[in-house]
Amino acid sequence: MNQPILSLVSRTRRTPFSNRVDASGVKSYTVYNHTLLSTSFICAEEDCKHLKQAVQIWDVSCQKQVELLGKDSEKLLQMTTPRDLKKMRDNQCFYIPMVDEEGMMLNDPVVIKLSSNRFWVSISDTDMLYYFKGLASGFNLDVKVFEPDVYPLAIQGPLANTLIKNFIGEEYIKTKFFGFKKFSFNNKEMIIARSGWSKQGGFEIYLDGFENGEDLWDELFIAGKDLNVRAGCPNGIERIEGGLLSFGNDITIDFDVFESGLGKFCNLDSVEGCLAIQPLKKKSSPKRMLKPLEIDGDPITIFNQWWDLKDSNNNKVGSITSGIWSPDFETNVAIGMVDQNYWNSENLLIADSPQGKRKVIVRENFWI
Amino acid sequence: MNQPILSLVSRTRRTPFSNRVDASGVKSYTVYNHTLLSTSFICAEEDCKHLKQAVQIWDVSCQKQVELLGKDSEKLLQMTTPRDLKKMRDNQCFYIPMVDEEGMMLNDPVVIKLSSNRFWVSISDTDMLYYFKGLASGFNLDVKVFEPDVYPLAIQGPLANTLIKNFIGEEYIKTKFFGFKKFSFNNKEMIIARSGWSKQGGFEIYLDGFENGEDLWDELFIAGKDLNVRAGCPNGIERIEGGLLSFGNDITIDFDVFESGLGKFCNLDSVEGCLAIQPLKKKSSPKRMLKPLEIDGDPITIFNQWWDLKDSNNNKVGSITSGIWSPDFETNVAIGMVDQNYWNSENLLIADSPQGKRKVIVRENFWI
Repeated sequence: MNQPILSLVSRTRRTPFSNRVDASGVKSYTVYNHTLLSTSFICAEEDCKHLKQAVQIWDVSCQKQVELLGKDSEKLLQMTTPRDLKKMRDNQCFYIPMVDEEGMMLNDPVVIKLSSNRFWVSISDTDMLYYFKGLASGFNLDVKVFEPDVYPLAIQGPLANTLIKNFIGEEYIKTKFFGFKKFSFNNKEMIIARSGWSKQGGFEIYLDGFENGEDLWDELFIAGKDLNVRAGCPNGIERIEGGLLSFGNDITIDFDVFESGLGKFCNLDSVEGCLAIQPLKKKSSPKRMLKPLEIDGDPITIFNQWWDLKDSNNNKVGSITSGIWSPDFETNVAIGMVDQNYWNSENLLIADSPQGKRKVIVRENFWI
Repeated sequence: MNQPILSLVSRTRRTPFSNRVDASGVKSYTVYNHTLLSTSFICAEEDCKHLKQAVQIWDVSCQKQVELLGKDSEKLLQMTTPRDLKKMRDNQCFYIPMVDEEGMMLNDPVVIKLSSNRFWVSISDTDMLYYFKGLASGFNLDVKVFEPDVYPLAIQGPLANTLIKNFIGEEYIKTKFFGFKKFSFNNKEMIIARSGWSKQGGFEIYLDGFENGEDLWDELFIAGKDLNVRAGCPNGIERIEGGLLSFGNDITIDFDVFESGLGKFCNLDSVEGCLAIQPLKKKSSPKRMLKPLEIDGDPITIFNQWWDLKDSNNNKVGSITSGIWSPDFETNVAIGMVDQNYWNSENLLIADSPQGKRKVIVRENFWI
């Protein structure tokens, strides 16, 4: 059962880039927002090494876009997040925790502000389309909510700047972090943002039009041909080393925004219109929080469910939500929800795992 | 790329029965509602043959439950469906199309009426929890919306009655189709309904309490030990032969309820409170509809994306949404969205597939 087969059905959507991903020798997949997301090409460790040295093209179409269009689009968006959207400029991306009316986590997308009445919400793995549609009906808002024909493609790694310079020119690499610019491709105006789900730097291109996917992929590979460019994907090692939280793995609807460690994205003093303002004001000093963890012992071979985190008296004091062996740091890097009495790294904690008991340390910071 | 590996991560949830499914030799999986759903044990054809002869236990925990609890629970539910819930009795299950305010399909669950203010919605593969939460906030309804600790397990096949008689006694096999009764297991009151996603007959047990899953599984296998009981799963051949539509494969948000062939579940003359009544009244004579199709030629080896359906002049007149070889009917059985001008089986249609062009016939009825 270490390597089960994924059944290919039309319910699990292919993307504009799937034919190219197949041809690049993808080894494994996950399903994310009802869509294929590749998870390895050589293996997690080799893919990670390459990502840190060169540049990769990632099919992240599964970060589906939900477009909010119309007079009440910002109002609708603000209902779902404690981050103050008045601070957001046009041509800017924002990472925003999204919460229900009690402040519990629903999603953690990047939002792209196309204009004052038009946003793309680049979602993690839940159907935010449905939440927006429910709110829009219930509050009788003047907004259209739909999935546009737009698919993100990430260019990540230290050589991403050079690749993009080769592809569309030097001015695009001056884009600031979480800023975006427009460029023309196949007679379509497309968006390129300095963003992406790694700590290696890079860009995300928002492909406009499914039919243009393979042309875009091919042009990017031409631009990267002297840069050892490869097909890649979000890397489980690098993202934990870098402290990038994963909705569904680390964050769930059972955690509020503060417990999820996302308090820095809350502007409870200035935000207006978020449905969860009052409940969240009572939750700003959480009794548990997601923390960086280091797990002792041999390399973790599989991590497919949460592990209990226990104190020395065998009492449950939290859960390990993600864990993997890091060759660069020569330890098992991990993330977990930890009760506040155990945030001090001097407490010895125990992971109670299907692979036996292991010592765990709570760290101050992630690795990169 | 015919057999990619599925990466196992905690975001893709295991179920109360996953250890037992693994031990039963599952070969492949899909991901459904963020949860593992097995798709084959021997192979689709052998699994189908056994399902039609004996009895299988299916882990369908991925049909997640959304509980609606409170004074406004029926009001909330009725907002989402054109089926008249006033006709629903306690202790009854209803298959209901769920639609947005324009009448476009969002989900097609079975709903269990536990009491006048308590329902379980046994969802297909979209996050209806989010739609209900959005509506409940927007309309300020007095209802709690959450996922209870409940997981369906199906017992399907011609020997299901005998197995259930052995398990909890003769009175339970008198339950009518889409009725349910309660029984006690591990000191919990659980529900057993006559339902399930096959045409072979059987039951679905709604396990109460994750920790009771393996005990329930084991007791059912003891009750079926002389019946050639096996672990199984929804079968792609049998469900198309039987005309069971699949949300995500056949039905999507781009189709309204009439186009999806679900007009018989609409009570537009009597229903009160459904948000889509007015738009749906204009859509009751659809210009396209899901139909049973027969595809000529060799057995289809893979069907992982919709195929274009064309007329003899190469004009697109629809899409094939599902297709598979049926050994019993010695043809490729299929489902597709077909323009109304081509519903007559005398029209020759062409499937334009990655495996070449094939003749297609629109049928009057499904096979079983």
